[in-house]
Amino acid sequence: MAYQDSILHPGFKVGVLGGGQLGKMMAQAANNWHLPLFLLDTDNSFPAGRVSPFFTAGNFKDYDDVYQFGKDKQVLTIEIEHVNTEALHQLEKEGVKVHPAPAKLDIIKDKGLQKQFYAEHNIPTSPFALYTNEEAVRKAVASGERSLPFVQKSRTAGYDGRGVSIIRSEADLEEKLLPGPCMIEDLVEMDKEIAVIVARNESGQTQAFPAVEMAFNPEANLVEFLFCPANISKEVEAKAEALAAEVINAYGICGLLAVELFLDKEGNLLVNEVAPRPHNSGHHTIDSCYTSQFEQHLRAILNLPLGSTKMKSPSVMVNLLGAPGHTGPAYYKHLEECLKIEGAHFHLYGKSTTKPFRKMGHATIVDESLERAVGKARWIQEKLEIVSGS
Amino acid sequence: MAYQDSILHPGFKVGVLGGGQLGKMMAQAANNWHLPLFLLDTDNSFPAGRVSPFFTAGNFKDYDDVYQFGKDKQVLTIEIEHVNTEALHQLEKEGVKVHPAPAKLDIIKDKGLQKQFYAEHNIPTSPFALYTNEEAVRKAVASGERSLPFVQKSRTAGYDGRGVSIIRSEADLEEKLLPGPCMIEDLVEMDKEIAVIVARNESGQTQAFPAVEMAFNPEANLVEFLFCPANISKEVEAKAEALAAEVINAYGICGLLAVELFLDKEGNLLVNEVAPRPHNSGHHTIDSCYTSQFEQHLRAILNLPLGSTKMKSPSVMVNLLGAPGHTGPAYYKHLEECLKIEGAHFHLYGKSTTKPFRKMGHATIVDESLERAVGKARWIQEKLEIVSGS
Repeated sequence: MAYQDSILHPGFKVGVLGGGQLGKMMAQAANNWHLPLFLLDTDNSFPAGRVSPFFTAGNFKDYDDVYQFGKDKQVLTIEIEHVNTEALHQLEKEGVKVHPAPAKLDIIKDKGLQKQFYAEHNIPTSPFALYTNEEAVRKAVASGERSLPFVQKSRTAGYDGRGVSIIRSEADLEEKLLPGPCMIEDLVEMDKEIAVIVARNESGQTQAFPAVEMAFNPEANLVEFLFCPANISKEVEAKAEALAAEVINAYGICGLLAVELFLDKEGNLLVNEVAPRPHNSGHHTIDSCYTSQFEQHLRAILNLPLGSTKMKSPSVMVNLLGAPGHTGPAYYKHLEECLKIEGAHFHLYGKSTTKPFRKMGHATIVDESLERAVGKARWIQEKLEIVSGS
Repeated sequence: MAYQDSILHPGFKVGVLGGGQLGKMMAQAANNWHLPLFLLDTDNSFPAGRVSPFFTAGNFKDYDDVYQFGKDKQVLTIEIEHVNTEALHQLEKEGVKVHPAPAKLDIIKDKGLQKQFYAEHNIPTSPFALYTNEEAVRKAVASGERSLPFVQKSRTAGYDGRGVSIIRSEADLEEKLLPGPCMIEDLVEMDKEIAVIVARNESGQTQAFPAVEMAFNPEANLVEFLFCPANISKEVEAKAEALAAEVINAYGICGLLAVELFLDKEGNLLVNEVAPRPHNSGHHTIDSCYTSQFEQHLRAILNLPLGSTKMKSPSVMVNLLGAPGHTGPAYYKHLEECLKIEGAHFHLYGKSTTKPFRKMGHATIVDESLERAVGKARWIQEKLEIVSGS
């Protein structure tokens, strides 16, 4: 049965490993088509438990849980890379469509293998080297093989800014090196950091969303703002979209691939890293594009025609982070005043507990004037405090 | 506790009578804020059962079911007028906020009382008279008190084009008169039929969406297409919005009021009828406006600041109706080809059974060119067939 014939038919089951905010928003997109989305995560108090009745309690890092969850599904996808890929390999052998393919997931979830993949496929990326642990890194510096500053990334433990350390000084070398196998790369003199989300389906059709520009919170190393369109030339925009398509074709992945890119001072684009799933840098598409990244991911993994990625409006996305110093039941202080802001769309993930810098939601501000949207985003970011208690 | 402080807090419960497509889309809007929405309808195979885990099985026309459902809620609203308002009156007495207020619902759900309300409040509407049954109507025609053509509306049984009969001839008078108490009004020589959805919160703030223009399927007497912006002058647009605000203020309702208006050949606006809830003529707002009608309804009943009703894009909404001659499990023929149409957003309600002309979903087409959007809507309407079986 072709996918398009099976959607909305009883017995056709699409499973997602992970029921956090990305699983939630994927299920929300599926709800528009009334497509049942089955989710696997710890328990149904997780964000997606609220928007889909098809929630299975389990651990997506556990072989048996993933295998049992997956074996009656026709299509499986992920909201997070750090899942049990052994089980996915087995399910794939047994005929389940797994998007992204587990073999590619194994490459992407290891930041060392990911860099080697780019080197092997002549995809531009910053120079790098791999080390077995922090001692080996110190030795390489002592011997003059590597010089400061550099970026250290844990090969397999990274997510949301964790597992990344910027080493600028001898003191950093003593205090900030991460343990275990790592990838070291040059600290690129960046002009901008941009991201392009590209989709690919089994038919080989690809479609990129407009490039977005990211601004980071230096303290938490998390994306704070995201602007679309990015403030780059049409030439760079076209180059970035073509590069994103080149990367997804090299991987041969079905679904979304979020490609984070460095634009250096000379105008060169370098692939930083990728995520084979909906991504924080695409949240604005829900409110500002013809097709949301979540719907596009579903189209791509179901081999449906990809949707138009045209913008309805310029937009700014701001992550709503837990306030520093607050851990406990979440309270959204000043939410009412923020609801007055014209063009602001609030997406709260429903995590019951807030923690410092935890992603508790996001707001997308649409406005014909990007500058005005940025002003509104800053206002909301300052005003809305996610604290504990009430 | 102020509403804005209670949203997202455990123990704050908002209930909706009805779990059909409007309840579903209301719950989808609530999901963005992770606000729990409790729904009452026959069983959770109803559309909203898929998008909210808080589904109560029961009959919203039954006193006990409504009372039991409502008594632990802080705020109650509806997706359909034909609910048990006696129970709502009792719940209101006991301190539950009911929006719209049951006293106003009693007026609106009786098309005779509704017309009298406009007459008493000097709100322009077409001339009308009330009759106890079809025999009384025939007598009035025989005596010359009433002349053909006219529109007969059943006072309390109307919904989705049912309960309305256009009587043009002696033959119609024999065959098409509806039984029971009715309201008869002149057949207005319409230039256009437009609708304005307006919101009002407890603070008295009102906000209207841009007027939409409706095109009907003459066979089913159902809205087939809806265009926004309406093809009317700025002057008429402003008059229509002001009239909608006048009507909602006259009712003193909190929530949405969809005001259907006739624009006659002389440029006069007449109120046809209203619905105190989200409405088919506002579905396009999900994909084309800064705030969707469903989010606006929630803002209004929770006394939150109303959202901007600005358009992101011109749009056309087309109802996806069950194909004539088909009753049974729904199959969406040619859906895949329709998914290729740029700017088309599909909303399928997940009704398991299709029937001739049953509203099974809608599609909103956004496009900078309204003309192009109309062309796409017609194409989809011809292409997509909702038939039984596969």
